[in-house]
Amino acid sequence: VPEPIQECSEVRFRVRYAETDQMGVVYHANYLVWCEMARTELCRLRGVAYRDIEKTDGIIMVVAEARLRYHKAARYDDEIVARGWLQHAHTRMITFRYEISTEAGDLLLTGETQHLFLNKDGRPIKVPEKYRPLFGLK
Amino acid sequence: VPEPIQECSEVRFRVRYAETDQMGVVYHANYLVWCEMARTELCRLRGVAYRDIEKTDGIIMVVAEARLRYHKAARYDDEIVARGWLQHAHTRMITFRYEISTEAGDLLLTGETQHLFLNKDGRPIKVPEKYRPLFGLK
Amino acid sequence: VPEPIQECSEVRFRVRYAETDQMGVVYHANYLVWCEMARTELCRLRGVAYRDIEKTDGIIMVVAEARLRYHKAARYDDEIVARGWLQHAHTRMITFRYEISTEAGDLLLTGETQHLFLNKDGRPIKVPEKYRPLFGLK
Amino acid sequence: VPEPIQECSEVRFRVRYAETDQMGVVYHANYLVWCEMARTELCRLRGVAYRDIEKTDGIIMVVAEARLRYHKAARYDDEIVARGWLQHAHTRMITFRYEISTEAGDLLLTGETQHLFLNKDGRPIKVPEKYRPLFGLK
Repeated sequence: VPEPIQECSEVRFRVRYAETDQMGVVYHANYLVWCEMARTELCRLRGVAYRDIEKTDGIIMVVAEARLRYHKAARYDDEIVARGWLQHAHTRMITFRYEISTEAGDLLLTGETQHLFLNKDGRPIKVPEKYRPLFGLK
Repeated sequence: VPEPIQECSEVRFRVRYAETDQMGVVYHANYLVWCEMARTELCRLRGVAYRDIEKTDGIIMVVAEARLRYHKAARYDDEIVARGWLQHAHTRMITFRYEISTEAGDLLLTGETQHLFLNKDGRPIKVPEKYRPLFGLK
Repeated sequence: VPEPIQECSEVRFRVRYAETDQMGVVYHANYLVWCEMARTELCRLRGVAYRDIEKTDGIIMVVAEARLRYHKAARYDDEIVARGWLQHAHTRMITFRYEISTEAGDLLLTGETQHLFLNKDGRPIKVPEKYRPLFGLK
Repeated sequence: VPEPIQECSEVRFRVRYAETDQMGVVYHANYLVWCEMARTELCRLRGVAYRDIEKTDGIIMVVAEARLRYHKAARYDDEIVARGWLQHAHTRMITFRYEISTEAGDLLLTGETQHLFLNKDGRPIKVPEKYRPLFGLK
């Protein structure tokens, strides 16, 4: 049985002016960008630079589904903490979960994204063996 | 009983270079932007410029939840059709549904977003009476 | 002598909510995106889809320099007209010029961008012969 | 005579996937966002949170002009250092200068932006007295 993966990545940064909209808060699509940063960081934590997966193996991990719940709005210059961890891993579908909050502890967003692996021809494939440990798969 | 709202908005545009990422396809967060364009257009179709809601009444319609299913990837310069319609309307929560495809008919994304209305103090309020017809509410 | 190129492209669209910032106007970096839309359209006008240059020949046209003058701020849902034309063309450097205004005629931005051509190895090259007519070069 | 301002801000971060384009490098408009991050940080270094200027005084500092020179392309996950400092300060026009490079020392971009101050009615004003020390003005 593979080890359950309980690691949680953490990325810290400030809200950029460009990320706000005329409501005076962060435009809602930017949270998907922040989730992706937590995802990248989780791979690094687990010993793999995501960019190398693309570069070395010509495999891409595409988003198949995203579900986002917005709890509170972030503002310009707020200090943000984006956390990500693995929720489920199957050989054909990986689910990440995210929690984004302010440094001060206000929960901003929770969400999940589901990912497929595609080969160079754009066909869905199983997670290649060398990357299975990354996702706690055998 | 309010009229059921079956109108569907339609916005057409080409994929911008800025919207692609290093996979050579549209970065997944951009679809939320395109959904918002279909939403704006639906309001206009129903006789209300969304910007006037914010400007005149100081009310904002915030995203509470988003669910996106990615079917196929769009590419730079593709001609896109973004469609949006009202899925549910309650006095405190409005749900829109979206379907984004290429001009050529390839389905790219389906999704929903749920919205709350907030007053100037950031408190959730019921849809103001004057905007109820916009959403087919009495 | 090559024909001087006086064609001017024109792209029309509405300001997206995502393009505004907390000042209530379009975030200044977005104008570079709009310039790029006018540039893409100018190539199309001249008979070449820019994406085919990249795809077919593996050549990319990179931005070497950009100069932007901001005259007035655009707002959410404004109807925008982005125009672009060729200002100078040398075999190693192409300069485009832009004028972005509202449909109502308010001038928003004027600017130029200079571009180099790079081959697959990232080395600067002369404009390939087949694309010279695109830029009015012999 | 006011003290010349020689402080230089420094912001460090990694390139986000969202910031790349199909060339496999950072989309050129994103450098303006990075310049703005260095600008925000410079204000903080000098003791003023830029967001408070907007919030407290209803004054905005708009971009009037931008000049960017692209030296080398950044890639996904690269570690970036964005530096900014004051180049000129007049009571009606402030010029910042930027230098953006990789952590490894490759110069990516140099540039300047010029800024005006506008009051609530959108009229250009002199830098308010309380903010003059921020810019080394008397």
